[in-house]
Amino acid sequence: MEQLFAKRLKKVKKSEIREILKLTEKPDMISFAGGLPAPQLFPVEEMKEVTVRVMEEGGCQALQYSTTEGYLPLRQQIAHRMNKRYGTNIQPDEVLMTNGSQQGLDLTGRIFLDEGDVVLCESPTYLGALQAFTVYNPVFKEVPTDDEGMIIEELEKIIQAHDRIKFIYAIPDFQNPTGRSWSTKRRKEFMELVDKYNIPVIEDNPYGELRFEGENLPSLKSMDQKGLVIFLGTFSKTFCPGLRIGWVIAKPEVLEKYIMTKQGTDLHTSTLSQQQIAYYIEHYDFDKHITKIKESYKKKRDLMIKAIEAHFPKEVTYIKPEGGLFLWMTVPEHMDTKELLLQCIKRNVAFVPGAAFFPNSQVKNTLRINFSNASEDEIERGIVALAQVIKAWL
Amino acid sequence: MEQLFAKRLKKVKKSEIREILKLTEKPDMISFAGGLPAPQLFPVEEMKEVTVRVMEEGGCQALQYSTTEGYLPLRQQIAHRMNKRYGTNIQPDEVLMTNGSQQGLDLTGRIFLDEGDVVLCESPTYLGALQAFTVYNPVFKEVPTDDEGMIIEELEKIIQAHDRIKFIYAIPDFQNPTGRSWSTKRRKEFMELVDKYNIPVIEDNPYGELRFEGENLPSLKSMDQKGLVIFLGTFSKTFCPGLRIGWVIAKPEVLEKYIMTKQGTDLHTSTLSQQQIAYYIEHYDFDKHITKIKESYKKKRDLMIKAIEAHFPKEVTYIKPEGGLFLWMTVPEHMDTKELLLQCIKRNVAFVPGAAFFPNSQVKNTLRINFSNASEDEIERGIVALAQVIKAWL
Repeated sequence: MEQLFAKRLKKVKKSEIREILKLTEKPDMISFAGGLPAPQLFPVEEMKEVTVRVMEEGGCQALQYSTTEGYLPLRQQIAHRMNKRYGTNIQPDEVLMTNGSQQGLDLTGRIFLDEGDVVLCESPTYLGALQAFTVYNPVFKEVPTDDEGMIIEELEKIIQAHDRIKFIYAIPDFQNPTGRSWSTKRRKEFMELVDKYNIPVIEDNPYGELRFEGENLPSLKSMDQKGLVIFLGTFSKTFCPGLRIGWVIAKPEVLEKYIMTKQGTDLHTSTLSQQQIAYYIEHYDFDKHITKIKESYKKKRDLMIKAIEAHFPKEVTYIKPEGGLFLWMTVPEHMDTKELLLQCIKRNVAFVPGAAFFPNSQVKNTLRINFSNASEDEIERGIVALAQVIKAWL
Repeated sequence: MEQLFAKRLKKVKKSEIREILKLTEKPDMISFAGGLPAPQLFPVEEMKEVTVRVMEEGGCQALQYSTTEGYLPLRQQIAHRMNKRYGTNIQPDEVLMTNGSQQGLDLTGRIFLDEGDVVLCESPTYLGALQAFTVYNPVFKEVPTDDEGMIIEELEKIIQAHDRIKFIYAIPDFQNPTGRSWSTKRRKEFMELVDKYNIPVIEDNPYGELRFEGENLPSLKSMDQKGLVIFLGTFSKTFCPGLRIGWVIAKPEVLEKYIMTKQGTDLHTSTLSQQQIAYYIEHYDFDKHITKIKESYKKKRDLMIKAIEAHFPKEVTYIKPEGGLFLWMTVPEHMDTKELLLQCIKRNVAFVPGAAFFPNSQVKNTLRINFSNASEDEIERGIVALAQVIKAWL
């Protein structure tokens, strides 16, 4: 059957990383590799109550087909929370519910990308977005990025040099994989440039609500004068990912394309899951729940950094994130972190080598460490083991 | 932003039918238009119990990310039920969980279709499949179809005349929209032909378990010697559609493409929903539940046919389905059922005009009526109203 598959499949390859990480699926492994939330923080008891109430108050409707756009009360809550947080004026009809924000990425590729179109992204950037877009055969251009975000002069040069740019993909808050956040100043400059050239922006924001310290920063969407920003949100990091509930915010003419496209893809997002979350937000204290998550992750981040400071050789540098789930490290240039991972797996500790997050650049000496999923004890032991392997290797 | 959208979007149009059907969204409308199950039959009480137990026995895991392939116990149950029903030997690693079988259709298009590739389908065929495939820009060829299924001689002629056929899309059981089922003899001849030419077959089977009378027929998959058949199943019609849980069955080399493709699309299907259904199948009597649905739908079908026989003019013919959700009607050739629908909406009764189910043919005098969703009283009143409009129009 091989010869019958579509050409686009040639680009969809089994991820080498994923194959290596399969080796980490054993019970005594300390894995800093995934991007999994801490399951102990999931609102299990509340979900039990919520489901009972949703079933009692309208079970038939909660189990029936529903609209592609999504459950209106939930879209209202999302718009309301967004407006409260960012001072925006999002209306519920600018919100589409998706199966996690990964579906928002896929729909984005489907709506914008013809073969050979150009996608601009940070360097490095989220692997899952690369995976989602790759099937539509675009050309990725990495925009040089520093601690404050995309470097505006470099971005403008790239914009001027390419005429098939369809959108800029960015994660301005606690970026995956680097954990960095763009400065307010850089956000403003970025939006000015984007306005000048009329380029759509995909603002992927799964971690923005998980800030442990410092001030909340304005979203790109809140600075969007021309309706160029398409905002992707999710409950995966603030509530629970197993429900697969995310959303897209865009101006109605653009959102309409997402809605029509989603309809052919899977009709609509789970009615029950949307109602569960809407009921939870309506009757429980969602912000308090998020505070609990932030406190836990901050503690874990601090613990991890303390262990790194105590055990790691000075040749290894890292970025301290003010929120989110990830910490990004750089080892000396001659080292390949894929090799390092294989060594570490023998010592029952795992991470993700950074190379996969660069669509074009050959950067081999970086790695991403997750601090949300492992227990405090595992973080301590895992960092010690990692330090020992790195030291032996240097 | 319009000029930035991908070329494929030009084919994704707002459905004219869907726009007309929006007129039917008022409380006093009797709608035979959708394909909705009867919500009164949803296992609301059981879903309450099931969710409480799933939360108590492993809530953290049920709310966490999970694998793209899907929840193994559910895939085992699906394989087991399939093997028991059809005498097949499906293994759990040949089953991928999807967001409803609509996602199975989309993934199929994505995996097989380059622009200009040929898809063979019944005439008429399922509108949602046409929608899912259209975004990949194939050429549809309608295979002449009679009461026993695709006409083999015609199918062979079409196969010989086209060299870019990627797959045949078929709904052999209680087809949407016609309600017809292929005869066993025709299924055998079809599989012989398919084997001869090595053409993949998408067997879409959402209604197969809803047989009210007559004998169960073998699935195409059960006659599949070469692994050419890709089987799509769903819990939307036998359990509840709001959970969006379907599946794809294919030989491992092919299923691998579906898995890789789904991963970029939305990572995985809802962990909780999969566990809810698996728990239900494990601890409740799923077959008894299906029997209850069948009894109800049979009663409604009988009632509808009785009303049609009593009130409809003899110029209108229809196909009596032995199962499923739909009844297909043909009115005199000079009549356009889109016009008829507009008349009917004024009388607060709605159906779907048949034209949309033909990708190429211009057939205007057919209509699809759903009998699963309306109440018995509504069926009676709706058919009387429909008959009056038709009589007045003749």
